[in-house]
Amino acid sequence: MKMFISLVTLTFLLVGGCATSTKKENEDNATSKKTSSKPLNPDKVLNVAFVIVDGVYNSELVAPMDILHHTVFHTDKGMKVFTVAPDPDIVTSFEGLKILPDYTFSSDSLPPIDVLVVPSAEHSMDSDLENEELITFIREKGARAAYVMSLCDGAFVLAKAGLVNGKESTTFPSDIGRYRETFPSLTVHEDVSFVHDGKLITSVGGAKSYDPALYLAEILYGKEVAKGLGRGLVIDWDLSKIDYIKVD
Amino acid sequence: MKMFISLVTLTFLLVGGCATSTKKENEDNATSKKTSSKPLNPDKVLNVAFVIVDGVYNSELVAPMDILHHTVFHTDKGMKVFTVAPDPDIVTSFEGLKILPDYTFSSDSLPPIDVLVVPSAEHSMDSDLENEELITFIREKGARAAYVMSLCDGAFVLAKAGLVNGKESTTFPSDIGRYRETFPSLTVHEDVSFVHDGKLITSVGGAKSYDPALYLAEILYGKEVAKGLGRGLVIDWDLSKIDYIKVD
Repeated sequence: MKMFISLVTLTFLLVGGCATSTKKENEDNATSKKTSSKPLNPDKVLNVAFVIVDGVYNSELVAPMDILHHTVFHTDKGMKVFTVAPDPDIVTSFEGLKILPDYTFSSDSLPPIDVLVVPSAEHSMDSDLENEELITFIREKGARAAYVMSLCDGAFVLAKAGLVNGKESTTFPSDIGRYRETFPSLTVHEDVSFVHDGKLITSVGGAKSYDPALYLAEILYGKEVAKGLGRGLVIDWDLSKIDYIKVD
Repeated sequence: MKMFISLVTLTFLLVGGCATSTKKENEDNATSKKTSSKPLNPDKVLNVAFVIVDGVYNSELVAPMDILHHTVFHTDKGMKVFTVAPDPDIVTSFEGLKILPDYTFSSDSLPPIDVLVVPSAEHSMDSDLENEELITFIREKGARAAYVMSLCDGAFVLAKAGLVNGKESTTFPSDIGRYRETFPSLTVHEDVSFVHDGKLITSVGGAKSYDPALYLAEILYGKEVAKGLGRGLVIDWDLSKIDYIKVD
């Protein structure tokens, strides 16, 4: 209930009180194809934080980062994207990319986070879940953010932080079983690209990590902006062709 | 002719003299759909260098890096991927990711490069083409590599370095006109994901940057390896469904 109030409050802050209507269209196989509603059109630049830890997967980090960063070329306001890590050291991705984080969890200069993105990492299903500093950061920032997005096994981290409680979600296809075992109370979907439930958007990840970001861009800025963002990345974006679930 | 000899020599080094047959299947619209031939099965770990400069585009860097890096989990030998930059400073990507390069152009420890990958960058079409250090590095390393791959506007850099001379290629869809104007002697294709001509593989880039890497993995390691690599990134890889050109 507290999270719901927080979401409503923040949605009002973001969109100046402009609400939008959505409808649930869960089909037989628990997938949903919808057309977009009126865009929310935030009246400010949104701060988008990508949480990175050692072993972060490249694609799950940069696919949504690229889409959301490129909003600055397609909208009046757009988004400011940045990385945030537990400490100021270089983060080495799963594929060996060495990334200097923009902020640390405790940075005084860390901007308020409107969209919290949690890409998967090598240890998203095990030791990262025992990392209290990481889980606490995500719990606190996620509670205040207007949107929280996970890619691939980032859903485990969000679930551990309590941000999936009472919500429907998905994760990397071959980790669905483990996700259900680890968090048996959750309603988990498979065979969809992403699930949107309230402020939470969880995605299967991999090369499909563009989808939830394009979807968020579409609900925030409209279909034409999302299509333009897609073209910039050689994606013929059409939400009606994506298998996803929107939960009311 | 010198490059051709170099390619033949290096192909022998890579595959221990094992050759493979290919056939050209250019269709009406200059696209080609083929099934794969016998994999080359290199008998050593291949070193794959990703050339990064300020303004490098995230997706064009990491999509092929992820596919080629993950070969270590799907083959006996696989690939060693690393980044190489003009100097040891942090490289800031177009989207703001701060990347510490693994090597500099002049590193004594730079491994011999089997596969040279040139992702697009913000200035691939202008000032990067005037960067003699960059062009010289790519010309020299590209001449010795067994494969040279560009993503998006990386094709401009390869063409400037002379690595596209006499070969067919492609680049980012909306930059095709400029590519043809800048390099009027080249045979340029559009409406394909990538073009493979000899040692050269040029790709449209963006989210399609996975395709040329999966293709290279398929010709090197076989269809099942490529399909496995695809599954790891939630891609249902099927080369017969990709629009590409293979030039004999």
